[in-house]
Amino acid sequence: MRVQGAHLRTIRETEDHRGLMVIDQTLLPDRLEQVRILTLAECARAITGMVVRGAPLIGVTAAYGLALGLRDDPSDAGMELARRTLLATRPTAVNLRWAVDRVAAVARERPLFERAGAAWREAGRLAEEDVAVCEAIGRHGAALLRGVVRRGTELEVLTHCNAGWLATVDWGTALAPVYALHDAGVPVHVWVSETRPRNQGLLTAWELGQHGVPHTLIVDNAAGHLLQRGRVDVCVTGADRVTSSGDVCNKIGTYLKALAAREAGVPFFAAVPSSTIDWSIPLGSTIPIEERAAAEVDRTGEFEVFNPGFDVTPASLVRGLITERGVCDASPVGLSRLFPERAA
Amino acid sequence: MRVQGAHLRTIRETEDHRGLMVIDQTLLPDRLEQVRILTLAECARAITGMVVRGAPLIGVTAAYGLALGLRDDPSDAGMELARRTLLATRPTAVNLRWAVDRVAAVARERPLFERAGAAWREAGRLAEEDVAVCEAIGRHGAALLRGVVRRGTELEVLTHCNAGWLATVDWGTALAPVYALHDAGVPVHVWVSETRPRNQGLLTAWELGQHGVPHTLIVDNAAGHLLQRGRVDVCVTGADRVTSSGDVCNKIGTYLKALAAREAGVPFFAAVPSSTIDWSIPLGSTIPIEERAAAEVDRTGEFEVFNPGFDVTPASLVRGLITERGVCDASPVGLSRLFPERAA
Repeated sequence: MRVQGAHLRTIRETEDHRGLMVIDQTLLPDRLEQVRILTLAECARAITGMVVRGAPLIGVTAAYGLALGLRDDPSDAGMELARRTLLATRPTAVNLRWAVDRVAAVARERPLFERAGAAWREAGRLAEEDVAVCEAIGRHGAALLRGVVRRGTELEVLTHCNAGWLATVDWGTALAPVYALHDAGVPVHVWVSETRPRNQGLLTAWELGQHGVPHTLIVDNAAGHLLQRGRVDVCVTGADRVTSSGDVCNKIGTYLKALAAREAGVPFFAAVPSSTIDWSIPLGSTIPIEERAAAEVDRTGEFEVFNPGFDVTPASLVRGLITERGVCDASPVGLSRLFPERAA
Repeated sequence: MRVQGAHLRTIRETEDHRGLMVIDQTLLPDRLEQVRILTLAECARAITGMVVRGAPLIGVTAAYGLALGLRDDPSDAGMELARRTLLATRPTAVNLRWAVDRVAAVARERPLFERAGAAWREAGRLAEEDVAVCEAIGRHGAALLRGVVRRGTELEVLTHCNAGWLATVDWGTALAPVYALHDAGVPVHVWVSETRPRNQGLLTAWELGQHGVPHTLIVDNAAGHLLQRGRVDVCVTGADRVTSSGDVCNKIGTYLKALAAREAGVPFFAAVPSSTIDWSIPLGSTIPIEERAAAEVDRTGEFEVFNPGFDVTPASLVRGLITERGVCDASPVGLSRLFPERAA
């Protein structure tokens, strides 16, 4: 959205509403290019190949993907095949399942010939809701972070991976409060960890630069040193799944930052749309952790590699969750106060 | 040493004893090549450019560098200039200062025409001592790690950066106990973190592979997840400087691993020759932390970068120090028991 003044979203419908245009995030920050997605298969490949990434954006993309699948085969069997294809793309982010199931539920109520259209419109609503949810996270998060600002100095924020507008339809989750503060004239500086092995930190640095927010790139290893030396006021990340007890599953390396934040007495927050909360499981240790290709770590193929994509930060290390309804403790009580309809 | 059965050292004198042959570590693991060093300037450039790296090896190289400087100008002024040139190459590792000062002290006792020769021979002694010291660290460390081995499973070791034979003249510090155990038939597997931004983990993976020690490469971000999931029995790293109270300054990212180790109840050890102990300062927070070039992190030059080369792991996170005299607590008492002659 903040690209050279023009309003750009990570995902939008083509003018004929027959397909999608998405920013190819594998080319950023070198080149800003959009690619067209016209089929379920293309959609699944875009998610697996991380052309689109970020839990909320994966959810929206998969929602459209189900609609594309229903165009080819609107039967129950076709819908189930499309659903499974999409769920198999990335196992950790729960938004994907949430989005696909929501669109499937709408389609299932309709006669076969109306299913694809209804699903497409529901995916569109989901995309618009994502924008509104991220705006609300920005608002609540900014109010929270104002409380951390020390008089006379800029607010020093540490983030990990990319949870900006590139990870959502617009605005972002962890970066939405940063943008809101910056736009309100509060001086903010962001420490951006590069986030090996995929270097999504470069996406964060790029989008902060587009928006004019001061920032500095560090290697992931440097986060502990910065926190220890008092150079960070607050940590804010996104999440790929939050359990009903407040455990936060997010990009690999988040846990190390949360440990160092606690040691330094620096609050650690996760910014999460409610679609990221998995009410079905309490313990983060039961979340499936995606293991990705060795080639992401070692291009030569010479070495044995273990490449987990995510880790779990226990709720005890999380000061709070920033959601579209406000901020709550990362605990069953905190979450059930904010989402009473989901409390068991 | 363990390259295809042939005995190879990281640094050796040329046959005419006029210069040095060192392995160019910037080319590893792709290519194993040696380069010749004939002058003080070449020596300083090799250290700055990380052709040679690792605190012990930097010390030995700088010791020879002083001798090379004295060949051109054996006066007190010439010696002081050479000393300052070498001390300016890398500010964090204390072995460098220790080695240069030891060689300078020997040279200073001699008439001008004998200084270069005496310094060269002293550097040679220092190199041989380094080998013996690392062998002793291997012996003491192996005895220590045998106590961690769980019956029926292989010992899972996590290390960071490269503290193997490539970081010393031979054997290594942190990896010396691993080699000793492996050679004694104890099943060992090493988790190797890649160590951004310079990827010295690839050096570790390469030398473990040459020696036949099973190992797996991970991104630095993955260490917390492994520790949390119980897949690491012990952490062992080297160090660039240890204070008299046991604070451990080592490659950036070490601190994060030590935090995660404590959280998981996994012991964290640093393997250090006594030349790495800086008896002049008690607090790690006063150690100068080298800030290296932005280009190590971001080749494009597009982003603002902060690139500290080292961090400090407080003694409270360190279970013990493995030295050539044995293992001691990372505390003033522990260190002064092992080194009573240095106790104030």
